Amino acid sequence: MSAATEQTRQIKILAFDVFGTVVDWHGSIAREIDTMALGIDGNRFALAWRAGYVPAMQKVMSGELGWTRIDELHRMILDQLLAQFQITHLTEVQKQHLNHVWHRLDPWPDTVKGLQRLKTAYTICTLSNGNLGLLSNLSKHAGLPWDCILSAEIFHKYKPAPEAYLGVAQIFDVVPEQVMLVAAHQSDLDAARHCGLQTAYIERPLEYGASHSKDISVHPDNTYHARDILQLADLLGC
Amino acid sequence: MSAATEQTRQIKILAFDVFGTVVDWHGSIAREIDTMALGIDGNRFALAWRAGYVPAMQKVMSGELGWTRIDELHRMILDQLLAQFQITHLTEVQKQHLNHVWHRLDPWPDTVKGLQRLKTAYTICTLSNGNLGLLSNLSKHAGLPWDCILSAEIFHKYKPAPEAYLGVAQIFDVVPEQVMLVAAHQSDLDAARHCGLQTAYIERPLEYGASHSKDISVHPDNTYHARDILQLADLLGC
Repeated sequence: MSAATEQTRQIKILAFDVFGTVVDWHGSIAREIDTMALGIDGNRFALAWRAGYVPAMQKVMSGELGWTRIDELHRMILDQLLAQFQITHLTEVQKQHLNHVWHRLDPWPDTVKGLQRLKTAYTICTLSNGNLGLLSNLSKHAGLPWDCILSAEIFHKYKPAPEAYLGVAQIFDVVPEQVMLVAAHQSDLDAARHCGLQTAYIERPLEYGASHSKDISVHPDNTYHARDILQLADLLGC
Repeated sequence: MSAATEQTRQIKILAFDVFGTVVDWHGSIAREIDTMALGIDGNRFALAWRAGYVPAMQKVMSGELGWTRIDELHRMILDQLLAQFQITHLTEVQKQHLNHVWHRLDPWPDTVKGLQRLKTAYTICTLSNGNLGLLSNLSKHAGLPWDCILSAEIFHKYKPAPEAYLGVAQIFDVVPEQVMLVAAHQSDLDAARHCGLQTAYIERPLEYGASHSKDISVHPDNTYHARDILQLADLLGC
């Protein structure tokens, strides 16, 4: 604990992954799809939409696509899914509205209160692959009290590119060890740690819905492991 | 009024200039200098520091300097001023602290309440030449409830370059007419208007201190003219 206490003292910036870590993309999208009564299963549709996310970003990272925002990648995946699920009657306005469900995701129950507590002692920001407009609308919808919204859009590099993690330290004029990435995904935390950031894992066992189990075991390389953001505030003494 | 009402209906984003418009740079810096008891006049020092700002940015805009953040431009001007005012005893740590007075500027009395009211009906963001770290620290210090912090640092173009104004519309995926720049400087508003943004002038007669008068006359080209941010909220029906 003394090593952790020493590390805690120097942390100045908490940078949060967003999708899955602070908001419940699966539940929010599944509920909206079910409400639309399209005759398709919201759970399956949400999982399929999210499954297209990494391959779409990889097209940008490989150079196959030029810089493309997540809003546009989400729309490309949506159009494929609507064809695959044989949904052919939506108007263009309805498709745009559905694509913006990613701007209307609900927070986990602990998120807002946890962020408010952490904000009293740290600068709290996003570090998400979501674009700035999406993150701003989402944060307004969910009442997320960020000090600053940072996005891959600023760096024109998607996580896990080092430029995204190191960019947070550069923006706040601190060394990487003074930034801690908070995320529900070990791969994101691994990439941040390789850049010298500290890392906090948040469990979110229901990220993919009740029908999918998620490995939430402790990885000793992380600086902190917390059940949720309120427990992270406890661990950081906020 | 009906034309203004029509325009008001379509405004979605209020983008605020920061130095002078939402925070009182002159009073905050003059007070800090006077408190330091360096034997120099806080009013004169604040005015001289700010007077170096536009010429320093012009060196970046002309290409004489590569992209340089305002924090560094402020430090370059500070070093010149300390020599000019014959202040030779400050340590490096003291100089860094003084340079960060720009991160500790106080809001005008109407600012926080005015922004809170406007935030209920619009997305409110900064559009400042200040760098993201400076704006984040300043907003945390002053309690400014932005939905998003935007800066010339994102576009690598200082206002009045069109890329900065048009960049706000691009980020939020709206047309320029759906963005209104709110500023206490006609030159900033003129440049925004040329890009198709709507404009709101805020008077701030004491921006340069009580010893300097400022022209706060009405320019008919602006969409709105308000005494302060609370009156702007009145005019917008928030």
